[in-house]
Amino acid sequence: MNYTKFSKRNNFVRPSEIREILKVTERPEIISFAGGLPAPELFPVNELKNVCTEVLTKCGEASLQYSTTEGYIPLREAICKRMEKLSIKTSLDNIIVTTGSQQALDLSGKVFIDECDTIICESPTYLAAISAFKTYLPNFKEIPMDEEGMIMEDLEKALKDNPNAKFIYTIPDFQNPTGRTMSLERRKKLVEIANKFDIVIIEDNPYGAIRFAGEDLPPVKHFDTEGRVIYLSTFSKIFAPGLRLGWICADKSIIQKYIPFKQSADLHTDIFAQMITAKYMEMYDIEEHIQKIKEVYRHRRELMIQCIEKYFPKDIKHTLPDGGLFIWIQLPSNMDASDIFTKAIKNNVAFVAGESFFPNANFKNSFRLNYSNMPDDRIIEGIKRLGEVLKK
Amino acid sequence: MNYTKFSKRNNFVRPSEIREILKVTERPEIISFAGGLPAPELFPVNELKNVCTEVLTKCGEASLQYSTTEGYIPLREAICKRMEKLSIKTSLDNIIVTTGSQQALDLSGKVFIDECDTIICESPTYLAAISAFKTYLPNFKEIPMDEEGMIMEDLEKALKDNPNAKFIYTIPDFQNPTGRTMSLERRKKLVEIANKFDIVIIEDNPYGAIRFAGEDLPPVKHFDTEGRVIYLSTFSKIFAPGLRLGWICADKSIIQKYIPFKQSADLHTDIFAQMITAKYMEMYDIEEHIQKIKEVYRHRRELMIQCIEKYFPKDIKHTLPDGGLFIWIQLPSNMDASDIFTKAIKNNVAFVAGESFFPNANFKNSFRLNYSNMPDDRIIEGIKRLGEVLKK
Repeated sequence: MNYTKFSKRNNFVRPSEIREILKVTERPEIISFAGGLPAPELFPVNELKNVCTEVLTKCGEASLQYSTTEGYIPLREAICKRMEKLSIKTSLDNIIVTTGSQQALDLSGKVFIDECDTIICESPTYLAAISAFKTYLPNFKEIPMDEEGMIMEDLEKALKDNPNAKFIYTIPDFQNPTGRTMSLERRKKLVEIANKFDIVIIEDNPYGAIRFAGEDLPPVKHFDTEGRVIYLSTFSKIFAPGLRLGWICADKSIIQKYIPFKQSADLHTDIFAQMITAKYMEMYDIEEHIQKIKEVYRHRRELMIQCIEKYFPKDIKHTLPDGGLFIWIQLPSNMDASDIFTKAIKNNVAFVAGESFFPNANFKNSFRLNYSNMPDDRIIEGIKRLGEVLKK
Repeated sequence: MNYTKFSKRNNFVRPSEIREILKVTERPEIISFAGGLPAPELFPVNELKNVCTEVLTKCGEASLQYSTTEGYIPLREAICKRMEKLSIKTSLDNIIVTTGSQQALDLSGKVFIDECDTIICESPTYLAAISAFKTYLPNFKEIPMDEEGMIMEDLEKALKDNPNAKFIYTIPDFQNPTGRTMSLERRKKLVEIANKFDIVIIEDNPYGAIRFAGEDLPPVKHFDTEGRVIYLSTFSKIFAPGLRLGWICADKSIIQKYIPFKQSADLHTDIFAQMITAKYMEMYDIEEHIQKIKEVYRHRRELMIQCIEKYFPKDIKHTLPDGGLFIWIQLPSNMDASDIFTKAIKNNVAFVAGESFFPNANFKNSFRLNYSNMPDDRIIEGIKRLGEVLKK
């Protein structure tokens, strides 16, 4: 059968480049800095054995039955506590549990985007947010960044030019893909501008808890006085991505808009996963666990930066992330990262070329490196090999 | 903040009536036939303790890490075997794991529906499929049913009138809400008509494995010679709905269309849930478990029918399901099930009024009863109370 009656959005949402790359990089001889995977040796595997037994013993039937769309109350209570630590005052009505924060992106598309609407994002931005939003056929207006994040003058101009824009999407902490962090001043300014132009901000913050250098900054939502910041986060980077647990924290009036779409998307998120995550936080100290993650990632990031400075040509720039999982490499303007990728794969080392992170796909001279998922010897060897390719 | 820049689809997708009803029916004094919940006392809670320990011991890190969009290979292999038992020949490339079969409905909307497209469904049909599809703003063409399912003459006429219709959605086995089963002749005819009009069929089959009376019928997909039947099913009714595990079985060319949307929806389905489900089927006999479910549901369905025939007025008709979870009640045409509902709640008994199951919401004299989730004494007492309300 050669069926043709598919929806228009099939022309815009395609298998992601990363996914295709990851297939290549599964070959064991390849040192891959391509994915964005946490260090699996840090997962609390043994603790979870106790946790699963406890959940099944204490509330076995409920952990396997249909459950509520908003999420398991003890988990939402624990999320409220995490939000309070970030100086965001919140209650159960402000929280909905999602199937990973990826689902929160998809639901945001559903709640806000009509075909041909404009949405505003950083340039570059998270590749899987681009495909989640593209499903709903918007136009992307990219805002240039510098080391302090989105440039506010450009944002203000974009909003003047697009008064009906639906939302501003930002990843303020250790951004994927650049590793950059939005400065305190810009956070305040961002909320001020959003208030002025009456637009919501979607603050995607999966990495904020993994700060291993510099000083903590309050989330953009902390500065929100009008309930217009929608904060997304996840247990993927601080606990276990395999369980697919994320959350949305927003004004109650906004959460009410998400609920019917969450319900029609998957009824509710796996209640067993929600219960074991809540129980884990009750039985163990997740802050202690996060501390271990930070130490390992700090070390790996420092090692990778040292190697970059040692092995890469001097005209190649890199970011210096204070947390998160990624370093962004800026090549001279005449270089194309896709060409470098082809050569790198022949040298058994991989990364993600930068183009996929630009929704309008118009910058070719950059790429993203991940440092969280790799032991020391492979970081050293991989960056050395990449340096050889770049020097050619 | 009184934000107004939401998408159009917010006007069509609202919190489902069932969800609101379930809140009312959570009050312990109410006997609720409203939900569609499996019997929780049958969940294999103790077996799962062993299974979780085994998965965490043998592949702890992989069970908590990011995984592939298509799903865990051993689970997809087990699904292939289940499909083969249903006389559907299939391979790994034909299967994608979804976050409940609810997600398969949402993804089907993404793959096929553009705004104002026509889609074809039974009248009545599954309420959460209606809201999943409504997200993508189609028109619904409802096809009348009789005791043998969708009436084929009406379907053919609808396809003549709507040559660009995107798909035919059907629940052939023990349909939700009616409990009706499509006859063998109609299954063959349905595929023949779909071939003639070059349209895909979405066969939603969550209940097929729970047949407790009559003879097994092959799924619609069994008669598919051109790869145009997309078969959806789930572990929710045969194992544990809380884990949110469903699947799509379709032609490889169709599965390829679903993958990017699955990826942008939630990257992949909870891998821990996938692994424990696969491991459960390796360590225990799921067929034996399904047999237990069938016996309990057969008994409850027989008891409920007996009570209906004893306590309901004689001019009220009911279906006689050979499996699944639901009985459909047809009231005289001058009665409105919403009025009955209001009175029933005062008498501490609940159901779902039929109107929600008609996408164009134009039939008021029917309602749905669930029998799977209730012990004998509550079935007897609940139907007795309902009979009193109906007699008034």
